[in-house]
Amino acid sequence: MSSPLTPVLEQIENDFDNAVERLQTFLKIPSISTNPEYKSEVRRCAEHITNELESIGLNATLHDTIGHPMVVATDDSAGENAPRILYYGHYDVQPVEPLNEWEHPPFDGVVIDGPRGKRFVARGAADDKGQLMTFVEAIRAWKQIHGSLPVRVVILLEGEEESGSESLVPFLTEHKDALQADTCIVCDTSMWDENTPAITSRLRGIVYIEATLHGPSHDLHSGGYGGAVVNPANALTKILGQLHDDDGRIQIDGFYDDVVEVSAEQVAQWNALGDADALTLEGSGAKAIFGEKGFSTLERLWSRPTCDINGLFAGYTGEGAKTVIGATATAKISCRLVAKQNPKQIQNALFAFLKDRTPIGCHWDFKDFGASPAIAVPTNSPWLTAAIESLTKVFPNPTVTIGTGGSIPVVGEFQEILGIDTVMIGFSLDDDLIHAPNEKFEVTCFHRGILSHATILEAYANITP
Amino acid sequence: MSSPLTPVLEQIENDFDNAVERLQTFLKIPSISTNPEYKSEVRRCAEHITNELESIGLNATLHDTIGHPMVVATDDSAGENAPRILYYGHYDVQPVEPLNEWEHPPFDGVVIDGPRGKRFVARGAADDKGQLMTFVEAIRAWKQIHGSLPVRVVILLEGEEESGSESLVPFLTEHKDALQADTCIVCDTSMWDENTPAITSRLRGIVYIEATLHGPSHDLHSGGYGGAVVNPANALTKILGQLHDDDGRIQIDGFYDDVVEVSAEQVAQWNALGDADALTLEGSGAKAIFGEKGFSTLERLWSRPTCDINGLFAGYTGEGAKTVIGATATAKISCRLVAKQNPKQIQNALFAFLKDRTPIGCHWDFKDFGASPAIAVPTNSPWLTAAIESLTKVFPNPTVTIGTGGSIPVVGEFQEILGIDTVMIGFSLDDDLIHAPNEKFEVTCFHRGILSHATILEAYANITP
Repeated sequence: MSSPLTPVLEQIENDFDNAVERLQTFLKIPSISTNPEYKSEVRRCAEHITNELESIGLNATLHDTIGHPMVVATDDSAGENAPRILYYGHYDVQPVEPLNEWEHPPFDGVVIDGPRGKRFVARGAADDKGQLMTFVEAIRAWKQIHGSLPVRVVILLEGEEESGSESLVPFLTEHKDALQADTCIVCDTSMWDENTPAITSRLRGIVYIEATLHGPSHDLHSGGYGGAVVNPANALTKILGQLHDDDGRIQIDGFYDDVVEVSAEQVAQWNALGDADALTLEGSGAKAIFGEKGFSTLERLWSRPTCDINGLFAGYTGEGAKTVIGATATAKISCRLVAKQNPKQIQNALFAFLKDRTPIGCHWDFKDFGASPAIAVPTNSPWLTAAIESLTKVFPNPTVTIGTGGSIPVVGEFQEILGIDTVMIGFSLDDDLIHAPNEKFEVTCFHRGILSHATILEAYANITP
Repeated sequence: MSSPLTPVLEQIENDFDNAVERLQTFLKIPSISTNPEYKSEVRRCAEHITNELESIGLNATLHDTIGHPMVVATDDSAGENAPRILYYGHYDVQPVEPLNEWEHPPFDGVVIDGPRGKRFVARGAADDKGQLMTFVEAIRAWKQIHGSLPVRVVILLEGEEESGSESLVPFLTEHKDALQADTCIVCDTSMWDENTPAITSRLRGIVYIEATLHGPSHDLHSGGYGGAVVNPANALTKILGQLHDDDGRIQIDGFYDDVVEVSAEQVAQWNALGDADALTLEGSGAKAIFGEKGFSTLERLWSRPTCDINGLFAGYTGEGAKTVIGATATAKISCRLVAKQNPKQIQNALFAFLKDRTPIGCHWDFKDFGASPAIAVPTNSPWLTAAIESLTKVFPNPTVTIGTGGSIPVVGEFQEILGIDTVMIGFSLDDDLIHAPNEKFEVTCFHRGILSHATILEAYANITP
């Protein structure tokens, strides 16, 4: 007996050129959520994807929020006894600066040749427009061939993932019933490598702050005042320079108190995955591995917390020389957290670290850009097992279970507010330049991602929740 | 017998409203020399002041250079036996950023009410357009009344003072004969306070560099790579945080080797000038005095070297949060030098300090924005004495001799190339916000400055070089 999946996979092949074009159109909308100047473009992007989901035959609605719109689409054609799957993705993207480093404009949506075949190059290509279109295209193909889906589906697409998700918790709370599902699929993670699919079971949490040190009331001539009043740029670097000791250990009081050590077995399993150092160097273009002493690269990325300066500015930042002592100096600082660090506690400890070192006569302005804990999902659920098997059918190599250094706070919100565990499936690669100039997404990853989601849809129909 | 000066001083009073308007017109030209976008405005400014000097009756010429134009104007109407005075000023200005902190647009040339009467508010009001117009207006008044000047005069106005003066040394060398004079007057320094004029006899030197630390080949997602590769912003702050010890002493190897200690008598004389701490706090808006342990504020400003971060940038510097590890991190760093520190030696020591701390796998790009030594001029010359007496006639309080924390490299070039010592006379105040938003120049300072230069012109006619 022929499986209902077979014609769906054929339809994906036949329609693939159109799927590429549809993603290109999507990538052309500059939905930069963190910059208020792009507010109308973010909304236009939400409208675009709402129309797209409607055209597939889903019941799609754009919901306004105090921030950017939420898009929800449902399909209950599988009948009320079928499992219900919540799909999550985000249609907003990161800022594009530094713009001059892009080889193609970030919102032209080009497809160019690369060493692994064709690739999309655009802001959002991998994070997360290309990724969310993998399940949208799989659902489209099922609907085109069968007029219905094998499971019930609810899709939630957010427009604030890259800017703090301020509307998410209120929205989840308000629409708790409509979003109920048996499991959730988040498509915003990476593969191990081009031929090895991966399910992510561990995510680091995050705390992100901005700290501005104020000294003089205005910018000063460095000749007229240099040496006699505090220079906030000197003071800030002196303070931030104490964040790490020479072994790379973070010096914030109590920072490691709740860090759970990973078992030797777990570390051995990670280190057997392959040459993570080589992948990290290739993906980053760094010339050397670097980090907290006594840990392997995968331990550092998946099980150790960090403290990184993500932005730094003071004084004159233009071309040439200006002999100025700036009135303020600012750092954007984030900490990646691991189980079971408490985000609020870490945030407070970071504030205290800075405050304790305030130079005489200076004061701080702090901004809070959000805090979320690290997450671990159950690795023995039927949903995870079925997803692993489905991916293994599509890719040359079997699926591996990995951690990730990034944070996807929504996974924690789903657990807490909706009571749903998430299966994290993603098709990006470490060298996709996510958040950087020339972000790309391999066309082959997009292709296999669609096939994978189509396969998972069938597998999930056979699970009794 | 009535002095020829008397009608000149009367003419200055009668024409003063026009002098204010002429300075306002001059201030409206955005002659920002460090930014290539303003190149044509810098030239327009040079043309404007050349025409101004010609209209007074001087022989004025605009000289093109590889950078911005030099303006030279001469008047030999006093006859070949009269002393010849070289006047120096600069018509270029600093950048205006941060623009949003200006209460009036920086190139509107407004005159507004302030606590000390009317004031000019504009970029360049005090540094150096307002200051150079004090001697231009004095010369104008002498020419208007007498048709000639009591001394021979050569005026040199530079357009690159705020951007490294790359053309200065070649120009001085090429025009050595035309610029020959018995003494030089530089009008780019400050008074002690509103009622106390000052002659500056000590200038700090300067070394200014830009250092960019390169780590990964491109910006990275801080989740995907944080903790496993070097973050140049973390590394740069760790390095710069070592520049000063807890007592404010600079930790660059050999930095203090050639610093000349100032005598106890000199220090006592400076400290008797008045409450320098109060002036410094008022001028800077800082809440506390700060600096190298064991020295008074005037010692720190006039006789101790510094190391200041004048600019700092890395990663994402826009609004909101971006979880990025920047590929590079940059600092603009200047050191103010005192006698007898060698600028090249200090520059090399600073480069070595940074290089010695290069993290594994990283490299630096260095830019050199110039280096000049500290200067001390003779305090017993007849030119200085006559200037001191002249200023005392115009102001309520007697003239004081001071140092300054700033650098005026041209004073060293005049000494070295032309063999001329400089008398540094200036009419700006410590709270003039030079190089900062809302730069201003008190109209009363402008007024007394013009009267002072008219008086000096007569006094200098009586000196036999």
